[in-house]
Amino acid sequence: MSALSDEHRPTLDRAVEEIRRRGYWSAYPEMPSGKIYGETAKEDGEKGFAALLNQPFPLDQPAGGDPVGREESPYGFALGITYPTVAPATLLAAAKAAGAAWARVPAEERVAVALEALKRLNRDSFLIANAVQHTTGQSFIMAFQAGGPHAQDRGLEAVAYAWDAMSAIPGAVRWEKPQGKNPPLVLDKTFRIVPRGVGLVIGCATFPTWNSYSAIFANLATGNATVVKPHPMAILPLAITVKVIRDVLSGAGHDPNVIVLAADDPERPVTMEYMTSEDVDLIDFTGSAAFGATVRAHARGRPVFTEEAGVNPVVIAGTDSFRGMCGNLAMSLSLYSGQMCTAPQSLFVPAGGIETDEGHKSAEAVGEGIARALDKLLGDPERAMAVLGAVQNPATLERVAAARDKGRLVRESAPVQGQDKARTATPALLAVDAASEAWREECFGPVAFLITVPDADEGIRLAADSAREKGAITASLYATDEALIDRAADAFARAGAPLSVNLTGGILVNQSAAFSDYHVTGLNPAGTATLTDAAFVTNRFSVATVRRPAAAA
Amino acid sequence: MSALSDEHRPTLDRAVEEIRRRGYWSAYPEMPSGKIYGETAKEDGEKGFAALLNQPFPLDQPAGGDPVGREESPYGFALGITYPTVAPATLLAAAKAAGAAWARVPAEERVAVALEALKRLNRDSFLIANAVQHTTGQSFIMAFQAGGPHAQDRGLEAVAYAWDAMSAIPGAVRWEKPQGKNPPLVLDKTFRIVPRGVGLVIGCATFPTWNSYSAIFANLATGNATVVKPHPMAILPLAITVKVIRDVLSGAGHDPNVIVLAADDPERPVTMEYMTSEDVDLIDFTGSAAFGATVRAHARGRPVFTEEAGVNPVVIAGTDSFRGMCGNLAMSLSLYSGQMCTAPQSLFVPAGGIETDEGHKSAEAVGEGIARALDKLLGDPERAMAVLGAVQNPATLERVAAARDKGRLVRESAPVQGQDKARTATPALLAVDAASEAWREECFGPVAFLITVPDADEGIRLAADSAREKGAITASLYATDEALIDRAADAFARAGAPLSVNLTGGILVNQSAAFSDYHVTGLNPAGTATLTDAAFVTNRFSVATVRRPAAAA
Repeated sequence: MSALSDEHRPTLDRAVEEIRRRGYWSAYPEMPSGKIYGETAKEDGEKGFAALLNQPFPLDQPAGGDPVGREESPYGFALGITYPTVAPATLLAAAKAAGAAWARVPAEERVAVALEALKRLNRDSFLIANAVQHTTGQSFIMAFQAGGPHAQDRGLEAVAYAWDAMSAIPGAVRWEKPQGKNPPLVLDKTFRIVPRGVGLVIGCATFPTWNSYSAIFANLATGNATVVKPHPMAILPLAITVKVIRDVLSGAGHDPNVIVLAADDPERPVTMEYMTSEDVDLIDFTGSAAFGATVRAHARGRPVFTEEAGVNPVVIAGTDSFRGMCGNLAMSLSLYSGQMCTAPQSLFVPAGGIETDEGHKSAEAVGEGIARALDKLLGDPERAMAVLGAVQNPATLERVAAARDKGRLVRESAPVQGQDKARTATPALLAVDAASEAWREECFGPVAFLITVPDADEGIRLAADSAREKGAITASLYATDEALIDRAADAFARAGAPLSVNLTGGILVNQSAAFSDYHVTGLNPAGTATLTDAAFVTNRFSVATVRRPAAAA
Repeated sequence: MSALSDEHRPTLDRAVEEIRRRGYWSAYPEMPSGKIYGETAKEDGEKGFAALLNQPFPLDQPAGGDPVGREESPYGFALGITYPTVAPATLLAAAKAAGAAWARVPAEERVAVALEALKRLNRDSFLIANAVQHTTGQSFIMAFQAGGPHAQDRGLEAVAYAWDAMSAIPGAVRWEKPQGKNPPLVLDKTFRIVPRGVGLVIGCATFPTWNSYSAIFANLATGNATVVKPHPMAILPLAITVKVIRDVLSGAGHDPNVIVLAADDPERPVTMEYMTSEDVDLIDFTGSAAFGATVRAHARGRPVFTEEAGVNPVVIAGTDSFRGMCGNLAMSLSLYSGQMCTAPQSLFVPAGGIETDEGHKSAEAVGEGIARALDKLLGDPERAMAVLGAVQNPATLERVAAARDKGRLVRESAPVQGQDKARTATPALLAVDAASEAWREECFGPVAFLITVPDADEGIRLAADSAREKGAITASLYATDEALIDRAADAFARAGAPLSVNLTGGILVNQSAAFSDYHVTGLNPAGTATLTDAAFVTNRFSVATVRRPAAAA
């Protein structure tokens, strides 16, 4: 692959247009359809997944340590897959050496490799969907979309930003400074993109691909080597990803150690050893605020891009579609059992109730409306499973059980009927007073708080304060008063929480679309970086200059 | 100032073109000429400076604490100027409040204010030159150029990058997702630039304006408020700067506390209190590596942009202009008495000598050639003062004296004859072996080491290793072998040190031109940021989104 092929160039050009336009665009079809992916694609994906179970994962990278792997499907079986390990210093040395060569590969070639890898990952979307489903617990359709095409779109978006930033730097220029009547001073200068070196990408258990692809592909395009450190319970999706990228690298004649997998298991964690290494030059992290603080504390001046956690608010001030609002909120609370970083947790309702198309509704009636919508959405077990998926971590079930006592139960959490193997839980809804401490902390999983406030403006104030103090990745508002909407827009902008207004149909506050939605602002404790903006790529490389007097004409 | 006036728009457009072209360009004339700045400008600048001495500096900002100010001119007199102080919490609260309003001002208006401020600072270049000369010790001509127009160019460059980055983000878009045969999902989205909040800009004693203007103007343009914390020995140039910007802000109807001065004196330092404050959202720092490490350790996930220090190497492998090389190096070592962050310190020469246009020269002969060129350059006291200026800090003289024993003296440092008031020192040149530790640490001031190496490639290796370990802001090479030049280009690119090759004329390795040279790469310990590239501005703001279903057509 000596340059951007005819196949990839149009994709790149279009992607660069779209990051500036930021309307709707997607390069990878989100429908798991045989017409698009091939009539046998679904079956091939299942077979491919089954073939990986209960044996060592075929990853040809530096090894020699004890293999690791304790993944268990939240749907009730052990994956039985093991992954190679090696001493971090050895893996880092391999990545560093590969990175030194990769840094000298022209940016155009690096981008071509990235685009080819994304194409192959897209082709493997059904396999990846199975891997994501049986590590995260997502339903198949979500695992396919969020784990496959949507993650690939985020990867492409990062490549586009990287290319845009790198192409803004000229390769060679003549610098000619006038000297009045004397001949000008003339220097020839060459500028060379120099990546930082080795990046560490720390993945999470709930969206192993979606939350890592921006970083992985930003690193790949800008010339950094990457050590991918997956969450010990969600290794497989990133192992497949690393394997695909390594295959494309090798096929194009490059050292595959430009990307390596650093798997571990919960008893023998390796993250700290990588993070504190002098051989790691930048860090991307998705995970808890507690570990996020550790990552930030170890930055040592290195670029650190984090997505941590937040308490996402909804302010309910009024609506002209009460049914639409309740249905939309029920879906937002239920999708993947509230395990999305974008799921709402704190719902603010005026104590005096709200005006709606169905007349005045008391605060209690609002809670009942949402509870009824939840019951309706989740009444049929099969449909419930398609929405809820399974619960990734047993600790989440414990958290849901413990939340029961934190307020007045408006709706109780329950397992999905007939699911004896999968870990499941429908959303709990708890009514609390604004003075309560219960709603102020993140309660990860299917738990939401209905918080009574004196009026909508106080709800906005509390919600924005909470975003500033505890972080928020989304905010949502239902209101018919345009002046109130403007005030909310100001308040949430200052608090760094993207605001969705009056969602009553097929769009959920949870959804963040590549090429359009800026995911995480970096302006509140929910994270330090945005997926994806210019800041996400520009600090992954710098420019080295050589200047010398121009040869006399 | 409701928008970019006809006066400023062409400057901005040209500056944005130039940051992509990166050839020669300057917006502010560097010649301290009456024809450009007005026939009385020089005299007005001197009078203006004299009028400021021995009284409180007229800065109308929150005050109430004991005034501070202990500045002393390295040319031998106390400035006697005091500056207002107030509790850091009070100053930060004022900056925060002003910043909240400034954040809502349209980017175009913010940029207009920045450009108007730069224009007025340019008009005050002679006053600023006096202030810079009598705090830093720079000669008048350098104080004028580096402290005035060159600093202003760096400020404009930062505004151009900020504008370029902000204009890439659309204000409002329609997002329309096809749904097959069903009507599309349609959202209207608005994107709003949201600055981080309050920036702390920590200045240095040697280039108070040049090293701070990029940060100050990047903050101003991107909507951040700024607390300017000058070095206690170089307050005046930044006090004048802050005053000018505040005047422009007020004149345009904005809260002047968008920029405030946090002066202190050596006995009562305030930097730590600002740096650790929760009300500081980003930090720019220029200064020592030791304090740089403290700044980086306190980042807490906040963006931190530093320029620290380095050991800048020169590898002497051969030349076709021995006289030109020695003269150029003598100038580089002498300019501002080696107090430039870009000045060379370690000169590597093959033990077997080099080939030149004057025949073979032994390593000793190379040292003697440079020493003779120094003697010639600095023989006349008046000319010497114009090149050397004065020594900013008495500790530098002690360091020069102590360096005497670190190797074989090739050329001794000495005061400039007839200067009984100014602190002066010509460069010392010491010959050492490559195994010596003496040359490996920064020895700030007029001291250079001539280091004997087995051959030029070993010199390149040692120099690049040193850059990686101790930092380097510049590197220089004299060579006639193009293959060797290529190897050096690779080695210094990897070490993040911009390389100048075969400078024998009017261009010095010390010089870094705005709009063309990337100053500091962030790839070695000399700093974390570049003046100026996209990474310098893009992380100073983020984007807040409001999205809502489009009204039915």
